[in-house]
Amino acid sequence: MSIMEKSKKASQAAFTLAAVDVETRNRALQNIIKYIKENVDQLQAVNQEDLDRAEAEHLAAPLHKRLKLSPQKLTDAIKGIEDLIALPDPVGVTQMATELDNGLDLYRVTCPIGVIGVIFESRPDAFIQISSLCLKSGNAVLLKGGHEALKTNQFLYQLIRKATEEAGIPSGWIQNLESRDDVNEMLKQRETIDLIIPRGSNHFVQYIMDHTSIPVMGHSEGICHVYIDRDADLKKAIRIAVDSKAQSVSVCNAAETFLLHRDLPKSFIQSLKQSLEKENISIRGDERIQQIISCEPATEADWHTEYLDRIVSIKMVDSVDEAIRHINHYSSKHTDAIVTENEETARKFLLEVDSSGVYQNASTRFADGFRYGFGAEVGIATGKLHARGPVGLEGLVTYKYKLIGHGQIVSDYVNGSAHYTHQPLKQDCPL
Amino acid sequence: MSIMEKSKKASQAAFTLAAVDVETRNRALQNIIKYIKENVDQLQAVNQEDLDRAEAEHLAAPLHKRLKLSPQKLTDAIKGIEDLIALPDPVGVTQMATELDNGLDLYRVTCPIGVIGVIFESRPDAFIQISSLCLKSGNAVLLKGGHEALKTNQFLYQLIRKATEEAGIPSGWIQNLESRDDVNEMLKQRETIDLIIPRGSNHFVQYIMDHTSIPVMGHSEGICHVYIDRDADLKKAIRIAVDSKAQSVSVCNAAETFLLHRDLPKSFIQSLKQSLEKENISIRGDERIQQIISCEPATEADWHTEYLDRIVSIKMVDSVDEAIRHINHYSSKHTDAIVTENEETARKFLLEVDSSGVYQNASTRFADGFRYGFGAEVGIATGKLHARGPVGLEGLVTYKYKLIGHGQIVSDYVNGSAHYTHQPLKQDCPL
Repeated sequence: MSIMEKSKKASQAAFTLAAVDVETRNRALQNIIKYIKENVDQLQAVNQEDLDRAEAEHLAAPLHKRLKLSPQKLTDAIKGIEDLIALPDPVGVTQMATELDNGLDLYRVTCPIGVIGVIFESRPDAFIQISSLCLKSGNAVLLKGGHEALKTNQFLYQLIRKATEEAGIPSGWIQNLESRDDVNEMLKQRETIDLIIPRGSNHFVQYIMDHTSIPVMGHSEGICHVYIDRDADLKKAIRIAVDSKAQSVSVCNAAETFLLHRDLPKSFIQSLKQSLEKENISIRGDERIQQIISCEPATEADWHTEYLDRIVSIKMVDSVDEAIRHINHYSSKHTDAIVTENEETARKFLLEVDSSGVYQNASTRFADGFRYGFGAEVGIATGKLHARGPVGLEGLVTYKYKLIGHGQIVSDYVNGSAHYTHQPLKQDCPL
Repeated sequence: MSIMEKSKKASQAAFTLAAVDVETRNRALQNIIKYIKENVDQLQAVNQEDLDRAEAEHLAAPLHKRLKLSPQKLTDAIKGIEDLIALPDPVGVTQMATELDNGLDLYRVTCPIGVIGVIFESRPDAFIQISSLCLKSGNAVLLKGGHEALKTNQFLYQLIRKATEEAGIPSGWIQNLESRDDVNEMLKQRETIDLIIPRGSNHFVQYIMDHTSIPVMGHSEGICHVYIDRDADLKKAIRIAVDSKAQSVSVCNAAETFLLHRDLPKSFIQSLKQSLEKENISIRGDERIQQIISCEPATEADWHTEYLDRIVSIKMVDSVDEAIRHINHYSSKHTDAIVTENEETARKFLLEVDSSGVYQNASTRFADGFRYGFGAEVGIATGKLHARGPVGLEGLVTYKYKLIGHGQIVSDYVNGSAHYTHQPLKQDCPL
């Protein structure tokens, strides 16, 4: 099947999937668990084929680890589906209800987005997680995993397709894509695909955005900041700065730049340096920082850089306003934190910093769907529309307006024989 | 100033505007009313210059009517601002609150989108309405009105800028664009502009979408359907069909196609024809319809056409499923209605039709921000993400996650010395 045919099939399935009740969707999720459990051995044998090929191609160790579908990862994936089944239905939620007139009721009700194309890394557990999230939210999905996981994904695709169709999910709701050409074809299917979610490097996400007119919910990069204010509790400041940078360095919510208020004691900056050195973090400082501690010089390029490494850039600022200006200029609008005990300064920072996550006295590393309590996450969106930050089930639905009347026509309201009441209704949409 | 400079200035203003309280924003709106009232004569003199130029250029009568800033339109515009002042603040609304742990509280709070570029028709009252909507929602705005209104818009721009800056709104929040080249430059300002709202023809909106990587909230066209089911109340059906088509034909929420169930009596189809002829609506029917009433033949192209004229296409369908398939294929996802007394059929139609408005037993002409009770509308979105259907103040805000801690770090939760509680909170965000 061509990609155009696959996305048409997905689109047709999406229209009927939108009316499939949550019991059926949950039963299908349950059936995925059953099929995975029944096919563990074969699944791991197929995964071994991918691992052998990766070994032959000298795949780097971290990628190898991601590719391997270990028993632990399968247990986690099954736990993930169980959690999803337990979550409330994101579809059919009445968000607004207004009586326009007696017997003419308007409801805003959540509904699936339709067809979602997801491009993701060589992690077969992500195949399971993404397809389950889309199913729970009533969306059809085109999946394109990293090519290293080709065999495992093919196997998972067949297994999930069978498990869900058997449980009454419309045939064609899930489609598997296998090559880069497939991705380029997918980006052209504006008629049938409603949303593209690319996961991967900043460069890759940018490429996708530049090559499609389909809306993209992308996560472009994470240049996160910790601003340590004049009124910071200095103990908290060191803990938060070190955790934000060093708890895990290769992740998008790790801090790349610290901004320090000029009134902070020199001794504080020296202790911060010592704490960072204990974690093997090297420092690049601006001129004023270099006068206080010995470090590499930071250049303009450093403020723009997502190191994803054991490096941090540090700049001294004269005020919270300068910190906000710096962040709004250089940040990737992911997550930025202020350390301060001053409520007014914190309020200003949280209102004026234009990022999806704005924190007072907490580590930037909290920016994560699991930590936020969303149960599951399809990615972290750095755009500003539709969904921002960690995106769970709620980001995978949209809404429609349902108007239920008894023959009302606009003429009567225009000629004055009928009048709008515009009263809020307390009931959920009956249809 | 170049367009890049204008959008940078707007972007800088947007960061501080995000922290301006609603009292100040409302005071600024009040000041716009004051300035309009004080400058009515001059405003109408300037508008007359535009009208004279338009006359010399032989502008068509309907366009001339749109361009004229009559006393009635000014009264309506002032009433519109008064209504906006009375509406609750869309910014700073806590949408979600979760305790992640004791003293670590997460809030999802609405905030302005940032900088919005709006391109609109030659209606000076729209300049007032759009800038007021953006101000109330805390957004900076770049306005590009139709060139016929050049002088009036220049005058309004100066007046609104002065009125709002005087009331404490950050300088630069409003910018006026004057030429088509300005629009093309604006479409490139991805760094500083967050959203483009184009108003105008389908062709124009498509052009904008194809020439920018900034998100576009567009209204591309209105191919709306009325499906008359086997179980329809036939009296309601005729009223709704005629109103949907004929109440106003040149608008996006007017119906272009009727779908009739094959079991409907022939006499009904004949009365429908008579009712439409009374309104001077001509019919293009498919083969089965042509066997019942005399009419022009409908071709494939008709199902794709937004007539915006006194023409309707009519097709006979075998079932509600065929009606849904037809609509999901040809509709522009604007508004589609079913006429039926059968709740199950209505439920199926409302769930499976993939449009922003899905109606049972009501005219498609109700799809409108004023009729929905939104108070004001910036346009009708036919995309599926962020905002759908009539877009009021709520569509002009997004949200951010505010996390307020007391020094919590992720390490403690990873090493097991701290644990997430994930309890819903009942309070609004304090910052």
